[in-house]
Amino acid sequence: MKKTKEFNLKKYLVEKSKLVNKLLVKYLPKDKSVISRAMRYSVLAGGKRLRPIFVMLGAESFGLDLKKIEPAICAVEFLHTYSLIHDDLPAMDNDDLRRGKPTSHKKFGESAAILAGDALLTETFNLIAKADVPADRIVKAIKMFTDFSGYNGMIAGQAEDTIEAGKWNKKNVSLCKKKLDYIHTHKTSDLIKASLLLGAILAGAKDKDLKSLKKYGHNIGIAFQIADDILDVYADKKLLGKKGSDSDNDKLTYLRLYGKEQSEKNAKKLINEAKKSVSQFKINKEIYESLADYMIDRNF
Amino acid sequence: MKKTKEFNLKKYLVEKSKLVNKLLVKYLPKDKSVISRAMRYSVLAGGKRLRPIFVMLGAESFGLDLKKIEPAICAVEFLHTYSLIHDDLPAMDNDDLRRGKPTSHKKFGESAAILAGDALLTETFNLIAKADVPADRIVKAIKMFTDFSGYNGMIAGQAEDTIEAGKWNKKNVSLCKKKLDYIHTHKTSDLIKASLLLGAILAGAKDKDLKSLKKYGHNIGIAFQIADDILDVYADKKLLGKKGSDSDNDKLTYLRLYGKEQSEKNAKKLINEAKKSVSQFKINKEIYESLADYMIDRNF
Repeated sequence: MKKTKEFNLKKYLVEKSKLVNKLLVKYLPKDKSVISRAMRYSVLAGGKRLRPIFVMLGAESFGLDLKKIEPAICAVEFLHTYSLIHDDLPAMDNDDLRRGKPTSHKKFGESAAILAGDALLTETFNLIAKADVPADRIVKAIKMFTDFSGYNGMIAGQAEDTIEAGKWNKKNVSLCKKKLDYIHTHKTSDLIKASLLLGAILAGAKDKDLKSLKKYGHNIGIAFQIADDILDVYADKKLLGKKGSDSDNDKLTYLRLYGKEQSEKNAKKLINEAKKSVSQFKINKEIYESLADYMIDRNF
Repeated sequence: MKKTKEFNLKKYLVEKSKLVNKLLVKYLPKDKSVISRAMRYSVLAGGKRLRPIFVMLGAESFGLDLKKIEPAICAVEFLHTYSLIHDDLPAMDNDDLRRGKPTSHKKFGESAAILAGDALLTETFNLIAKADVPADRIVKAIKMFTDFSGYNGMIAGQAEDTIEAGKWNKKNVSLCKKKLDYIHTHKTSDLIKASLLLGAILAGAKDKDLKSLKKYGHNIGIAFQIADDILDVYADKKLLGKKGSDSDNDKLTYLRLYGKEQSEKNAKKLINEAKKSVSQFKINKEIYESLADYMIDRNF
């Protein structure tokens, strides 16, 4: 019997990210205003487009033609980019570079960066609303998406990371571990979950399947963040494509709290749990599994 | 024949704004995180609540029970408040006081203010999605609302005002008039229009009526802004409840470009046009007319 051809994740990611880049150009504003230019600059600055790929995966797993949700695929990258622009601001992380290029406020000025972020965030919901699926799915998707990206979701993680983390009692290791988990859950996992769920909800997936996807997304998100902490210290900085700033300052990282060996062990465990939660899926199981592995072993 | 009792706008506004304040408390987050506290602080800092009142008016004019759209009534005030918090930031207008109280970044720090604004903007769409009306109306409302509040709407006006206005050639008066009209249209009128249309769309109003409301909202918005420019110079600063900063600096105002007499004349004309555009409305016509007058004669 002929062996099934092994799934090629690299090829999958390259093809999907090409499609995402094409769609992003299509759905970004075209005019020459400083805000539109700043929106284009940051959205098109590159990146693996993992979040839009999660939307597509969520949608295709439940039989939806991607043509129906092109704008919604872009929506998550708009939201992700707004959060990066605002994170980089002088009052936040004060970063001058992102993906090797000047950050938005360095390039366009601080007020334009604030407004470009606001504009991307606003447009996120326009793009979701433009999906060509029954309206009740869109409404359900927007409720879910605002929950995961708002004050109980991504923004809560960002606030803990930017505003509260400096005040932690670093001698209380178990408290620090709990708080770091809170940051990773909200700052990273929430948007991965939201992306998978966005595609699945727009495709009309059942609540049982949404629950599985939520678990999967949560676990790969935390594992991704642990791997990031490890890469931040041990990987070639060029390969990572960003400066390894977290390890240079006083910030508590997963690596510092758990050590390298335990960090790697925990990440591996999370990936296995993630795979288990989608084991009953009929289609695309291989993609979910490969993507989970990729989260902690980003070798391309 | 007994004369119909004259419509009491003051009483109407007081009653409606009381209801709005009650709803805002209900739909604001309750927890003690710095972001939730900052959200509550700015949303509950006061104000006339005109925009939520416009949502209610738009909804009631087409027979919708307000109980069905309580969260959506709050949504516009969330959006308005986010725009004020971000406007006040050091990189933007750099204001220390708003409604006689420290601005968000003065009270909570700049990063919390940025994130609280982001959180209010995100929650805006959650609140609209929570309306208890057919889903297709919600989707239509969100498309409209993001258009008027995004990079082609309110944010475009804000960008022109904050980033571009300093570069205008002030000797070219006709260009300045055109640009000032652009700012007023997007920075002020767009959200008034969006509020009226939000209520009306959620109530299932016909496109013909939405068009009339759009005209009405546009005209009273511009008139409101002209009156604001005049009040900024001539009114008792205490009555206005904010510092008269626009006249103190180099900023071009309607008043400077047109003079007091022409400004008042233009405002009056816009109000008359606004009234005409809703003249065919069967219910609430008196409210629309009184509100239009109130825009340029805010004596309470």
